[in-house]
Amino acid sequence: MTFAAPITVPVALGDRSYDILIGRGLLAAAGAEIASRMPKARVAIVTDENLARLHLPTLAASLDAAGIGHVPVVVPPGESTKSFSHFEAVVRAILAGRLERGDLVLALGGGVVGDLAGFAAAVARRGMRFVQLPTSLLAQVDSSVGGKTGINTPEGKNLVGAFHQPDLVLADTGLLDTLSPREFRAGYAEVAKYGLIDDPAFFAWLEENWRGIFAGGPEREHAVAVSCRAKAAVVARDEKETGDRALLNLGHTFGHALEAATGYSDRLVHGEGVAIGMVLAHDFSARMNLCSPDDGRRVKAHLAAVGLPTTLGEIAGGLPDADRLMALIAQDKKVTRGTLTFILTRGVGEAFIARDVPPEAVRGFLAERLEEV
Amino acid sequence: MTFAAPITVPVALGDRSYDILIGRGLLAAAGAEIASRMPKARVAIVTDENLARLHLPTLAASLDAAGIGHVPVVVPPGESTKSFSHFEAVVRAILAGRLERGDLVLALGGGVVGDLAGFAAAVARRGMRFVQLPTSLLAQVDSSVGGKTGINTPEGKNLVGAFHQPDLVLADTGLLDTLSPREFRAGYAEVAKYGLIDDPAFFAWLEENWRGIFAGGPEREHAVAVSCRAKAAVVARDEKETGDRALLNLGHTFGHALEAATGYSDRLVHGEGVAIGMVLAHDFSARMNLCSPDDGRRVKAHLAAVGLPTTLGEIAGGLPDADRLMALIAQDKKVTRGTLTFILTRGVGEAFIARDVPPEAVRGFLAERLEEV
Repeated sequence: MTFAAPITVPVALGDRSYDILIGRGLLAAAGAEIASRMPKARVAIVTDENLARLHLPTLAASLDAAGIGHVPVVVPPGESTKSFSHFEAVVRAILAGRLERGDLVLALGGGVVGDLAGFAAAVARRGMRFVQLPTSLLAQVDSSVGGKTGINTPEGKNLVGAFHQPDLVLADTGLLDTLSPREFRAGYAEVAKYGLIDDPAFFAWLEENWRGIFAGGPEREHAVAVSCRAKAAVVARDEKETGDRALLNLGHTFGHALEAATGYSDRLVHGEGVAIGMVLAHDFSARMNLCSPDDGRRVKAHLAAVGLPTTLGEIAGGLPDADRLMALIAQDKKVTRGTLTFILTRGVGEAFIARDVPPEAVRGFLAERLEEV
Repeated sequence: MTFAAPITVPVALGDRSYDILIGRGLLAAAGAEIASRMPKARVAIVTDENLARLHLPTLAASLDAAGIGHVPVVVPPGESTKSFSHFEAVVRAILAGRLERGDLVLALGGGVVGDLAGFAAAVARRGMRFVQLPTSLLAQVDSSVGGKTGINTPEGKNLVGAFHQPDLVLADTGLLDTLSPREFRAGYAEVAKYGLIDDPAFFAWLEENWRGIFAGGPEREHAVAVSCRAKAAVVARDEKETGDRALLNLGHTFGHALEAATGYSDRLVHGEGVAIGMVLAHDFSARMNLCSPDDGRRVKAHLAAVGLPTTLGEIAGGLPDADRLMALIAQDKKVTRGTLTFILTRGVGEAFIARDVPPEAVRGFLAERLEEV
C-alpha cells in the first residue's frame, strides 16, 4: 500500500515540542516513524481489548519489522477503565515489562486509553516517553494533543492526572473508517468547536464540506490538521491551562454537567454533551446580549445536519432540575475561588473567556430550557 | 518565643524557583510565611499519626492565626505508607476537601510523608502547589529539596512518582530535637555525603563539629544550610536527573541493594544503608585504583564516630550472596540500557559518575566483603 505523505503539524513547546503526523497508513508505518525518531527505545503498547483485536497485529508487525521490542498492556474498553485500579495495573505492567526511562509508552486507542496510558507514562519511573496513536476522531483532534492525561475518581472526572506531552502523535485517519457513525459524529463536535472558537472561515468550510470528512475523502485529513493546528496553537500559548487554554472548553461546562447528570453513560457521550453545550453557550450568550440569536440557530442547524443532538430534549431518560445542574457545574475543576468561568461568544468564531458569570443568570437560563423539554 | 532569623537558601529553577527557610520556630511561623507568599490559598496538611500528635496542634494554630483554612489528611507512619492504596486515599482526601488548583498541599513529616504528599500534589487537579515542612534531618537535607516525589510498588522502590517542585520548604531545626538518636544519625549520613561529593572542606568541618549538630547548636542550622545549598546547586543544574544529579546517589546504589536485601525494615534504615554504601563506594574506588585506601578509612572513621554502621557485618540477620545483591543493583532504576552506573570517587570530595562499571568487578568486590562478614 502506498499513501499520500502525511501532513505534519508541529506543536511548539520548547524542549517538549513534538510533531503530529496525520494521514492514512500511519499504523503500519509506526515502527519506522518511531525507530527514526527514538532509536533503541522499547515500547509498552497500552490498548483495550477491542482495539487490540482490530489493530494490535498490524502495530506489532510494524514494530517487529523495525526491530523494536514491545510488550502489550491490554485493558477493558470503556470509560470505567480510567480508574485508580486500572491506572495502578498499567503502571505496574510497564514496570514489570522492565522498560527503562528512555523507553516509551504507546497509547493505541481513543481518549480513555490515551488519558490512562499518558498518565501512566507521566509517573512510571517518574516520567517515560510517550507516543499517541489515536484511533477515534475525538482523540485525533482533541485528547491526543496537548498533554492532558488523567483518570476519574468518585469525586469527579479527570480530577487526577498530569500534564505530560507526547513525543509523537500518529493520527492514522484510515482507522476512523471502522468507527460507528455515532462515535464519528461525537468526535466531529470537537472539530466544529475549533471553527466556533476563533475560525469562522473553517466553520463555514465545514458547513460546506462535512460530508467529505465523514466519507473519508481528503477533507478528513484537512479537518484533522486544521483542528490539531488550532489546538496546538492554544496549547503553545498556555500549556498548563492558566489562561487562554480555557477557550477549548467552549460547550464543555454545560456539556460536562450533562454528562455527569446522565452518569457518563451511553445516554450521552462526551461529544454529544459538547454539541448540546455549544448550542447552549451560544444561546446563553445571546440571552446576555453578547451575540445574535441567529448565531445559535446557525450552530444548531449545522450540528443537527451531521446528526448530533442539539437540545436537552434529545437526551433520553430525563434530566435533574436546574439546581442540581448548577451544583454539577460548580463542581467542575475550572471553578476558581468560587466564581463561575464560562466560555461565551460574540458570534461564530468569536468565543472568549467570561469570568464572574452570574450564577443566577445561568440557573434561570437552564430552568427555562428544562421547562421546554 | 523569638528565634534568630532563618537562613534562606534559594533554589534556582526558573519559573519553578523557591526558597528553603532554615531555623528554629518555623513550624509556629508557618501560617505567616504561607500567607505572605501564597495569599488566600487553603491547605491540605498531609502528616502521619505520630507527627499529627506531636506537631499538628502548633501548625493548625499557626494557620488559624493567619486566617488560612486547612484540612488534615493523616496517614499511618512508616515506609509501607508509600503505597498505591495510601496514594489514592491521600489524593481523594484532597479532592474531597474541595481544594482548588491554586490551593496547596503541605507535607508535615519525614521522607515518607513528603514523597507521598508531593506525589499527591503533583497529580491532584493535575498539579497543586506544595509546601514541605520536613520533620526529620534526612528530609531537611535531602528529600524535601529537589522535587522528587513518589511511592513504592512490588516492582521496586520509588519507581512511580513525579518531579514536582515545592513552592516553599520550611526546615524547622527545632523539630529535630525530638528525633531518636538512630534517626538523627541516619539523616546525618546524607549531610556527610555532601562533603564527600565535592566539598572536602565541609567534610573536614564535620569531622570537627559534628557534636554541635547533634546537640542542637548553631552548627545544626549551618550544616542543614550547606547541605541544602549543595543539593539545590545540583538540582538547578539537572532537575530531571539526566546527568549530574546522579552524583547525589553516592553510596546509594550499594545502599539501596542492602535496603532491598533486608526488606526495607528496621534492620537497616535508609541513612544506614547510605553510610555503609558510601564506605563501600570509597573502598571499591580504591580497589579500582581511583583513590587511596586511606580515603575509605577516613570516611569509615568519621561515620563510625557518630555511631553509624560502616560494614556489612553490622547488618543484623545475614545478607544474601553477591549474585543476589548484583541482581538488586541491576534492578535499580539508574540502570541505563543494561550498563551499570556507579558514583565512584578520586578521594574525599571528588566523587564522579562512572558509567560502564564492569559488573564482574563489583560482584567480585561484594563477594569478598561478604566473606569477611
